[in-house]
Amino acid sequence: MGFEMAGLTVRGHGQPAAGRHPMTTLEMQNGTAVQYWTADRMPRRSWRTRLIGRPLPTADAPHQTVGKAIGLAIFSSDALSSTAYATQEILAVLAIAGTMAFPYAFPVSIAIALLLTIVTLSYEQTVHAYTNGGGSYIVARDNLGEFAARTAGAALLTDYVLTVAVSISSGVAQIVSAFPSLFHFRVHISVVLVLLVMVMNLRGVKESGKVFAAPTYFFIVAMYATVLIALVRYLAGSLGVVANPPPLDISATAQITPFLLLHAFSNGTAALTGVEAISNGIPAFKEPKSRNAGITLIWMSSILGTLFLGISFLAVSIGAVPSERETVISQLARTAYGGQGFLYLATIAATTVILIMATNTSFADFPRLSALMAFDGFLPRQLTYRGSRLVYSRGIMVLALIACLLVVAFDASVTGLIPLYAIGVFLSFTLSQAGMARRWWKSGRLAPGVQTKEAGSTLRYDRRWWLKMVINGFGSVLTAVVVIVFGVTKFTEGAWVVLILIPLLAFLLRGIHSHYRALAHNLSLEDFGEAPCVPRHCVILLVHEVHRGTLEALRYAEKLSSDVTAVHVAMDREESEKIRRDWSIWGKGTRLLILDSPHQAFLEPVLQYVDELSRQRQPNQIITIVVPQFVPKRWIWNLLHMPTAMLLRLALLTKKDIVITDVPYQINGATAAISPERVRTHSRSHSA
Amino acid sequence: MGFEMAGLTVRGHGQPAAGRHPMTTLEMQNGTAVQYWTADRMPRRSWRTRLIGRPLPTADAPHQTVGKAIGLAIFSSDALSSTAYATQEILAVLAIAGTMAFPYAFPVSIAIALLLTIVTLSYEQTVHAYTNGGGSYIVARDNLGEFAARTAGAALLTDYVLTVAVSISSGVAQIVSAFPSLFHFRVHISVVLVLLVMVMNLRGVKESGKVFAAPTYFFIVAMYATVLIALVRYLAGSLGVVANPPPLDISATAQITPFLLLHAFSNGTAALTGVEAISNGIPAFKEPKSRNAGITLIWMSSILGTLFLGISFLAVSIGAVPSERETVISQLARTAYGGQGFLYLATIAATTVILIMATNTSFADFPRLSALMAFDGFLPRQLTYRGSRLVYSRGIMVLALIACLLVVAFDASVTGLIPLYAIGVFLSFTLSQAGMARRWWKSGRLAPGVQTKEAGSTLRYDRRWWLKMVINGFGSVLTAVVVIVFGVTKFTEGAWVVLILIPLLAFLLRGIHSHYRALAHNLSLEDFGEAPCVPRHCVILLVHEVHRGTLEALRYAEKLSSDVTAVHVAMDREESEKIRRDWSIWGKGTRLLILDSPHQAFLEPVLQYVDELSRQRQPNQIITIVVPQFVPKRWIWNLLHMPTAMLLRLALLTKKDIVITDVPYQINGATAAISPERVRTHSRSHSA
Repeated sequence: MGFEMAGLTVRGHGQPAAGRHPMTTLEMQNGTAVQYWTADRMPRRSWRTRLIGRPLPTADAPHQTVGKAIGLAIFSSDALSSTAYATQEILAVLAIAGTMAFPYAFPVSIAIALLLTIVTLSYEQTVHAYTNGGGSYIVARDNLGEFAARTAGAALLTDYVLTVAVSISSGVAQIVSAFPSLFHFRVHISVVLVLLVMVMNLRGVKESGKVFAAPTYFFIVAMYATVLIALVRYLAGSLGVVANPPPLDISATAQITPFLLLHAFSNGTAALTGVEAISNGIPAFKEPKSRNAGITLIWMSSILGTLFLGISFLAVSIGAVPSERETVISQLARTAYGGQGFLYLATIAATTVILIMATNTSFADFPRLSALMAFDGFLPRQLTYRGSRLVYSRGIMVLALIACLLVVAFDASVTGLIPLYAIGVFLSFTLSQAGMARRWWKSGRLAPGVQTKEAGSTLRYDRRWWLKMVINGFGSVLTAVVVIVFGVTKFTEGAWVVLILIPLLAFLLRGIHSHYRALAHNLSLEDFGEAPCVPRHCVILLVHEVHRGTLEALRYAEKLSSDVTAVHVAMDREESEKIRRDWSIWGKGTRLLILDSPHQAFLEPVLQYVDELSRQRQPNQIITIVVPQFVPKRWIWNLLHMPTAMLLRLALLTKKDIVITDVPYQINGATAAISPERVRTHSRSHSA
Repeated sequence: MGFEMAGLTVRGHGQPAAGRHPMTTLEMQNGTAVQYWTADRMPRRSWRTRLIGRPLPTADAPHQTVGKAIGLAIFSSDALSSTAYATQEILAVLAIAGTMAFPYAFPVSIAIALLLTIVTLSYEQTVHAYTNGGGSYIVARDNLGEFAARTAGAALLTDYVLTVAVSISSGVAQIVSAFPSLFHFRVHISVVLVLLVMVMNLRGVKESGKVFAAPTYFFIVAMYATVLIALVRYLAGSLGVVANPPPLDISATAQITPFLLLHAFSNGTAALTGVEAISNGIPAFKEPKSRNAGITLIWMSSILGTLFLGISFLAVSIGAVPSERETVISQLARTAYGGQGFLYLATIAATTVILIMATNTSFADFPRLSALMAFDGFLPRQLTYRGSRLVYSRGIMVLALIACLLVVAFDASVTGLIPLYAIGVFLSFTLSQAGMARRWWKSGRLAPGVQTKEAGSTLRYDRRWWLKMVINGFGSVLTAVVVIVFGVTKFTEGAWVVLILIPLLAFLLRGIHSHYRALAHNLSLEDFGEAPCVPRHCVILLVHEVHRGTLEALRYAEKLSSDVTAVHVAMDREESEKIRRDWSIWGKGTRLLILDSPHQAFLEPVLQYVDELSRQRQPNQIITIVVPQFVPKRWIWNLLHMPTAMLLRLALLTKKDIVITDVPYQINGATAAISPERVRTHSRSHSA
C-alpha cells in the first residue's frame, strides 16, 4: 500500500525538477522509507505579494562581501546620523539655565569626543577577536554567562526600537524645519516613514553597497561642506548669528551646576549610538575581514568625532537655539549659506535621508539579534523563521509596531524621546567591553599556541593580553559610569521607564528560556522506552440534530473505533424526542446517550460527562470527541452557527489524552436552486 | 462492550436522582440503545456567576399570571414614560419658528391623542384575536406573509433599541434637571444605567408584580398630582410662568407652516410608543386573558392620553422652554409646586424611575422577539438558546451593546435621537393592523362555527367581521400616513438612517433565512439512502521535531488507520537530516515524506501536498491530518508556539472530506524540578 497511497510524483533530494518531477525513493533506513518531494508552487498573487514581492528561493540569499569604502557607507549611517541631533539635545538641557549657558556645549562635546575615542579603541579590539560578528549579546554570552547575555540582549532590543523612533523623529524634524507648514503632520509623516522602511525591509533590502553608498557620502560631503564654509566665514569674521531664530520653548529656571553639565553630557552621548554597528557586521567585509572592519571603524569614528565637534562649536558661535520648530542643523546651514537656497536644501535633504537610513541599521540588527536569541531559546521560536523573502519578517514587524507606538506616544519629539535613549546602548557597551576584558584574562591563562573554540569565536593566547584587558576594562568602567550618570541625570525625565523595562525584559527572557528548557526536558526521548500502546479508544460523537452532516461524522467516527457513543445534550424535551426517533432510524445501532441539561447549558454537561469518563478510564486510553461542524463557504456565515468544536477545544485545553476532531460538512448545491415547497424550513418544524 | 464503556451511572429520564443516580436503560429502539444521564454539576463560582447569579434549573421558569392592576403596572411603563418627553419634543420643533409658535403644541397634542384613540381601539381587537400574544411580527407573519413579517420584525427590533436609548437619555435628562452639575457626565451615567438594566435582565428579572407596581403607580400619582395642582392654580390664576427658564438653544429661523406643524406632530407621536406592549404580554394575564388585557389596554391609553394632554396644555400656559439643560417636566413641576422642594423632587424621581423601567420593556421584548425570529430561521439560531438564568442572554447583550453605542453617538440627547425614533413603531403598527384587517376578511370567508388553526392563533367566523375590518383597516391607513409624515418631515434630521436601516435589516433577515433553508435542504435525510462507506482513510502526521509529543501523535495516528504518512516540511537542511535520523529510530517504520520548501513557507507545501493527494483520491476517501499540538498549562505560553493546527484548519476550511485533528501534548513535570545539567536546551542543540 505504501507508495501507491501517496500516489504522488516525488523527486530526489536536491535534484532539479524534471518535468512532473519523477518519484524517487532515496533510501530505506532501519526499514523506514524516506521520500522527498518539492513543493514548488508559487503562492497566488495577493495584496501581500504585491506589497512585499513574490517569494524568493532560499538559494537566493545574498552572500556578497564589501570593501572598506562601501562598508563605511553601510554601517555608519546610524552613527553619523546622530550628529544631526546630539548638539541640539545638549543645548536643550543647557537652555534650562538660560542662553548664557549655551557656550558650555562645546566643552561638553569635547568630553563626549574623548569618550568616543575610548569606545572606538575598545571596539577595535572586539572586531579583531570576533571575526563572525561580535555584538554585545555574543560577547557577553561567551564570556560573562547567561545573566549578562540576557541583560545585554534586553538592552540592545530596547535601544534598537528607540533608534528607529529617534532617527525618524529627527528626520521629520529636518523636513519640518524646511517646510514649517508640515509641523502639524509630523506624527503622521513619521509613522508613514516607519512603515515604508518596514515594507522595504520585508521585501528584503539587499545590502547592495551602491544604494547605501550614495546617501551616506552625500551626507558626509554636505556636512563637511557646511561646517567648513561656516568655519571659514567664522575665521573671516563674516558668519554672524542666526537670523530670526525660532523662539526658545524652554524658560530659564535653573543655575549652571555640575549636575546640569552632566545632564547635557548624557543627552549628547546619543552621538555614540551606532558605533557598535560595525562589530555586528564583520562577516560582511572582504578578507581580511577584521582588519578591514577595524580600519572602517576608525574612519567612521574620526568622521563622527570631527563633524560633531565642528557642529557643536559652530552652533554655539552662531547662537543657535534648540526648538521643536527648527533644528540646529537647519539654523547652522542657513547661517552658513546665508539663506535657504539650494545648498541649504541639499544639506537638509542629506540629513533627512541619512536619518531615515539610520533606522535601517536597526531594521537589520533587531530581527537578526532576536532570531539569534530565539535560537538560544530566549525569545519565541517563531522569530527564527525567515519569511518568504528570506528575512526575519516577524522581527521586522514587531520592531516597526513598537517604534510607531513610541513615535505616537511621544508626538515625534526627539527631545521627548532622548531621555529614554542611549541607556541601553551604553549598558550593552559596558557588558560587551567587560566581556572582552574577561576574554583577555582567559586568553592570558592559555599556553601560547593553544586554541580553544567558543560558541562565537576562537580563543588563543595573546602576547599583549594584559594591555588589551586594561583598554577594554577601562572602556567598560567608563561606559558603566556613563550609564550611572544617565540613570541619575535623566531619571525623572523618563529614564526610569527604561531602567524598569530592561530588567523586566531580561526577566521575561529568563522565563521564556526556562519554559523551552522544561519542554525540551519533558519531551526528550533520552531514557524513553517506547510510547505505550493505546489499549482502548473510545469515541464520542456529539449529535445536535440528525442530518447528513451528522451521518458523515458518524461514518468517520465508526472508522476510528468500534466503541462509539452518540451524545446529545437535551435542552428541550420535544427536540430530544425527535433526536431519539431519528437516531433509531439513521444511527446504525450506535448507542445514544441523552445528557439532560437542567441548567440550559450546552458545554458543561459534555465536560462533566467527559470528566466522568476519563476518571474511569484505563491508563493511556484515549477519548476522541467527534464534532460535526458546519463549514460555510463564506466566512461571514459562521456567525449563524455555534463554533462547538472550538468552544470544546478551549474548555478541554488542559486535559490529557482527549482529542477533539471536527468533521466538516458543507452545503453542496446552490441556494437559488431550491424550490421552497420541497424544503422543510427550520420555521415549520418548530411551529409544528 | 456497550454499557460497560460508558461506565457511568445513568438514570431514567425524568426520574429524581437517587443517590449516585442508578443507570437505567430506558429502551431499545430498532436495536439502538438509548441511555439518559443528568449532568447536574453546578458550575464553579466565577465573576460571571457573581454578576448574574448561579444557574437556575429549567423547572424554575416563572409561570405566574397577573391581574389587571399589576398588569397595568408591568406593561404600561414604556407607554406612560413617553409623556416625560413627548411634549418637550413638540416644543423643540416649534421653537424653530420662535416662542410664539409654542401655543400650537396643544392642538398638535389633541391630534396625537385622537391617533392614540384609534390605535387603542385597533389593538383592542388584536388582543382578543391573539390570546397567545399578538405582536406585529406574529400578526404580519400569519396574515400578510414572510415579507411583511420580516419588515415588521426589522422595524420592531430597530425601535426596541431606540426605546432603550431614548428612555435612558430622557431619564438622565430628568436627573440633570434636578442636579445641573451632573450635565457633563450624562453619557457616562446613561451607559452605566443601560449596563445595570442589562445585568438585572441577565440575572432574570422575575416579572413579579410588586416590584413593578410601586414605581408605576408612584409615577401615575405624582404626575396626576402635578397636573391637577397646576390646573387648579391655573384656574385660580396663580400659576404664572416658569421662573428662570433655561436659555432657548434653538434660534428662530422659520415660519409657522403646515410642514412645521406636521413635523411637531411627528415628534410628539413618540407618546404612542409602548402602546403595543400589552398585546405582546397577553399570556401573562389571568383568565379571561383577552378581556383582562383589553381592559388594561383601555385604562393605560386613558391615563396616557389625559396626562399627555394635561402636560401639553400646562407647558404652553407656563411658557416652558425645550432645553437640554432642564426638561419640560422639571419646569412644570417647579412651577406647579412653586420651587424645588420635596414634591418637586418626588415628581422628578418618579419620572426618572419610570423612564428607566421603560427600557425594561424593551429588554423583555427584544430578546423574546429575536428568539422567536431565530426559531423561524430569520436570525442566528444562537439567539434561541436560553442562558443559565433561563433568559435569552445573547439577545439581552446585543440590545444593551447597540443601545450604548447609540447613547454615546448621540451624546445622550433625546432631541438628537427622536428623529430616528417611532418610525419603526408606526411601521409595525401599520403592518399589524393591516394583518388584522386581512384576518377579519379571512374570518368573513369562513362558515359560522368553523375554526382553522394558524401558527399564532385560532381563526373563527366573526359576525361583525366587516366592522372590525374597517376599524383595523382605518387604523392601518392612519398609521401608514403617519409613517409617511415621519419620513418626510424628519428625513434630513436622521430619519433617513432608519429608512435605510429597516429595509437593509429586512434584506439581511431574508439572507439568513435562505441560508438556513438551503442548509436544511442539503442536509435533509429525505430521499437519502445511506452514507456511503469510507473506502480508504489516509492519515498524514505532521512532524516538526521528533519528541515524545510526536510519538504520542504517531501512536494516535496508527490507531486511526494503517495508512499513515509522516510529513516533514524541510526549511533547513541540517534540521531535516536530524528528523530523518531520529525518525528511522523512533518512527516505527512509518513512511516519512520530506517536503522541500524552497520558499521558506511552512503552510503552503502542506496545502499543495494535500491538494495533490485529494485530487488523486477515490470518491469518499477521507484524509485526516494529525498535528501534534503543544498545549501549555498557562494560556500565555501559546505565544511561544506556532498554532499549526489552527492555521491549517483556517486554510483548509473549504475542503471537503479533510479532517484536521490536533493531538495535544503537555509538560507534565514542574519546571523548577529540572536540573540544568541534564537538560539539552534548545540553545545547545543549535550551537552544537
